[in-house]
Amino acid sequence: MRQNELLKSYEQTTQQLAGHGPRNVAVLKNAFESIDGKVNSDKYGQGSVIEDFQKQMADFLGKEAAVFFPSGTMAQQIALRIWCDEKDLKKVAYHPLSHLEIHEEDGLKELHGIQSILLATEDRVIELEDVTSMSEDVACVLLELPQREIGGQLPSFETLEAISRYCREKEIKLHLDGARILECLPYYEKTIKEICGLFDSVYLSMYKGIGGIAGAILAGDQDFIAQSKIWKKRHGGDLISLYPYILSADAYFAQRKNRMGDYYMQAKELALYFNSCKGIFTVPKVPVTNMFHVHFDKTPEQVSPILAQAQEIMNLGVTGYLRKEKQGCSFEVSIGDQYNKIPQPKVKVLFEWLGEKMETLK
Amino acid sequence: MRQNELLKSYEQTTQQLAGHGPRNVAVLKNAFESIDGKVNSDKYGQGSVIEDFQKQMADFLGKEAAVFFPSGTMAQQIALRIWCDEKDLKKVAYHPLSHLEIHEEDGLKELHGIQSILLATEDRVIELEDVTSMSEDVACVLLELPQREIGGQLPSFETLEAISRYCREKEIKLHLDGARILECLPYYEKTIKEICGLFDSVYLSMYKGIGGIAGAILAGDQDFIAQSKIWKKRHGGDLISLYPYILSADAYFAQRKNRMGDYYMQAKELALYFNSCKGIFTVPKVPVTNMFHVHFDKTPEQVSPILAQAQEIMNLGVTGYLRKEKQGCSFEVSIGDQYNKIPQPKVKVLFEWLGEKMETLK
Repeated sequence: MRQNELLKSYEQTTQQLAGHGPRNVAVLKNAFESIDGKVNSDKYGQGSVIEDFQKQMADFLGKEAAVFFPSGTMAQQIALRIWCDEKDLKKVAYHPLSHLEIHEEDGLKELHGIQSILLATEDRVIELEDVTSMSEDVACVLLELPQREIGGQLPSFETLEAISRYCREKEIKLHLDGARILECLPYYEKTIKEICGLFDSVYLSMYKGIGGIAGAILAGDQDFIAQSKIWKKRHGGDLISLYPYILSADAYFAQRKNRMGDYYMQAKELALYFNSCKGIFTVPKVPVTNMFHVHFDKTPEQVSPILAQAQEIMNLGVTGYLRKEKQGCSFEVSIGDQYNKIPQPKVKVLFEWLGEKMETLK
Repeated sequence: MRQNELLKSYEQTTQQLAGHGPRNVAVLKNAFESIDGKVNSDKYGQGSVIEDFQKQMADFLGKEAAVFFPSGTMAQQIALRIWCDEKDLKKVAYHPLSHLEIHEEDGLKELHGIQSILLATEDRVIELEDVTSMSEDVACVLLELPQREIGGQLPSFETLEAISRYCREKEIKLHLDGARILECLPYYEKTIKEICGLFDSVYLSMYKGIGGIAGAILAGDQDFIAQSKIWKKRHGGDLISLYPYILSADAYFAQRKNRMGDYYMQAKELALYFNSCKGIFTVPKVPVTNMFHVHFDKTPEQVSPILAQAQEIMNLGVTGYLRKEKQGCSFEVSIGDQYNKIPQPKVKVLFEWLGEKMETLK
C-alpha cells in the first residue's frame, strides 16, 4: 500500500529530480512537429530515413556501418550470435548483472543456444584480471559501460585499453553494451570514437540518455553489419517501418548528445545532497556518469511515507518506487533535462527536510 | 533501366489504382493529430495504451487474450514455437509459399530449430486432403488466408471447417496466418469470430488492409498469450514503447475495418478491366478478397515502357515494378482507399489505351 502511495505522490509532481520528463505521446508529437508529412517511410530497412541515420551513427561512432534495431535486446543477442558463429564457439563472457543475464528471459540461451560465462562479482565492475583469468575460451567478451545495475560504475580507461589489447591478442571479440555510453564520455574525457575504437561491435540505446521513444543502434564493420541485418529479419525486427523511432531518435540525439557533461556535473551535485542525509548513501559515492543508486539503511515501509510526504508538500518528485535490499532499500537516479529546471533553493530545502526526517527514524 | 523508369513514373503519379496512399510520415501525423500529448506511453507491455488495445482485439477476434507485437514475423514464429514445445515435437506444416518459408531468412529454423513440412503445391491453396495425407505428425498446421503469393486465393469455408475438425481430432494445433483475414470476410460471408473459432491461435497484421504503420496482433487462450509474452521479450520485441504503432493501428482499424466489402467489390471490378486486355490476366481470375496478381504474357522489357507511358500521360499509378515470371511478368494489386477516388471514366480510358498498346506487342 505504502509503495502505491509513493508512486501516486510521485506521479502527481510536476517537477522531478531525475529524467527528461514524462514518457508520454508529447515525446513523439514534439519530435514530429517539424517533420514534413511527405517524408517517405523507410521500408524493410531501405530508404533514406533509415539509411541516412545509420550512416550518421556509424560516422559518429567511428565504425564502418550501423543498423537501426527496434531494441537493444535484439541487437545484442545478434551481435553475440555473429561472433559465436564466426569462432564456432557458443560461449560469451559478461557481468553477472548484464541485461542479457537478468532482463531478457534467457533469450540468448533459448533462441541462440549461447552459454554465458560470468565475470567479476555482482558488486563491482569487470577488471583485466577477470578477463585474463577466465578458465574457458569464449567467442566474445561484453562490457557494459557504465554497469547500470550497480549504479553506473566504470572501470578506468586504462583497464578498457588493457582488456581490448588482451582480447585482440587472444582472438576474442570485444562487444560494447553502450546503452548509456554517451553518458560516460565526460568522466573518461575521451571522444566516442576513442572508446568505440577499443571494441569490435557497439550497441547504443536511443531512449536512455538521448530520450527517444525506443530503438537501438548496432555498429561494427561492413561484414558484421550485413550479417546483423539477416538476423534482424530472423528475429522479426526488420519492420516495414521503423521511422517513428528513427526520426525521434534523430531529433533527440541532436538535442541532447552534447548535454551529457551537464548531466554528469548535476549528478555529482545531487549525490552530494543525498549523502549529506543521515542513513542515505549513493552508489557510487561520487557518480561517474549521469546516474547513481540511492540507498537507505531503513526499510521501504519506513522510508516511503517520508518520501511521499516530501513529494506532496514540495511538488518535487524524488522516486516512485523503493527496491527492497538485504539491508534497507534503494532506487535509481538518472539525471536528464529536468534537474536543471528546479530552483536550487528548492532542492536545498528538500534535502534539509529529508535529512531531518531521516534523523527521526529508528 | 526500364524498371527504374517504371518506378519513377509510378512515384510521380498522384492517383493510384491500389493501396491507401503513400506510406509517408503523414500516416503517423494524421493518426496522432487527435491524440492528447499527455496520454502516457506503454512501458514494456504494461499500461492502458497497450492493454486496452489488446483487450479490444481479443474481444473482436473472439479469443481470450491478445498481445501486440512489433511484427508478424515475430508473432508467428513464437506461436509455432509454443505449440511445438507443448507437443514436444519441432515440426509444423504450411504452404510452400508461406511467409515463414520464403521471407524470414529461415528464422523459424535458425532461431527455433523447427522443421517445416510443406503442404499442397506452389500454385494452389491447401485442401483437406493435403492435411489428412501428411506422412509425418506435426505440432501445428498453419493456414494463410488468403494465400498471398498466389494472388490471395482462398479455400472454401467448408474446407476450413473440415481441416479444423481433423486437426482437433488428431491433436494438431491450427494457427491462422490472418495478416489479411479481415479482407476475406466479405467473400466467406462469415463473421471474424466464426473464422477465428476454427483456429487455436490467430495473427492479424496492423498495416495491410488496416493501413497502420507496422505491428501485429497475436490472439489465443490465456496460457498461450502468457507464454507468447515471455517469447516476445526473448526476441527483443518487448519494447519500452510500442505506442507509435498501437495508437496508429487503433485509429486506422476503426477507420477501415468496415471497408473490406467495398475493397472486395472494387477488386472484382478492376480485375475485369485487366482481363479485358489482350495478353493480360489476373490470378485469381475473379478476386475473392481485395487483392489479386496481374500477369502479362510479355516480358518486363516489353511491358514496362507501356505502363510507364500510361502513368505519365494519365497521372494514374498502375505499378512501380514488374516481377519476371517463367513466361511474361506480373505485379500485385491490393485495393485500398485510393481506387474509389479515381473517376470511373478515367479508369475506363486507361484500360482502353492499355488494351490497344498490348495489341501492338509481338
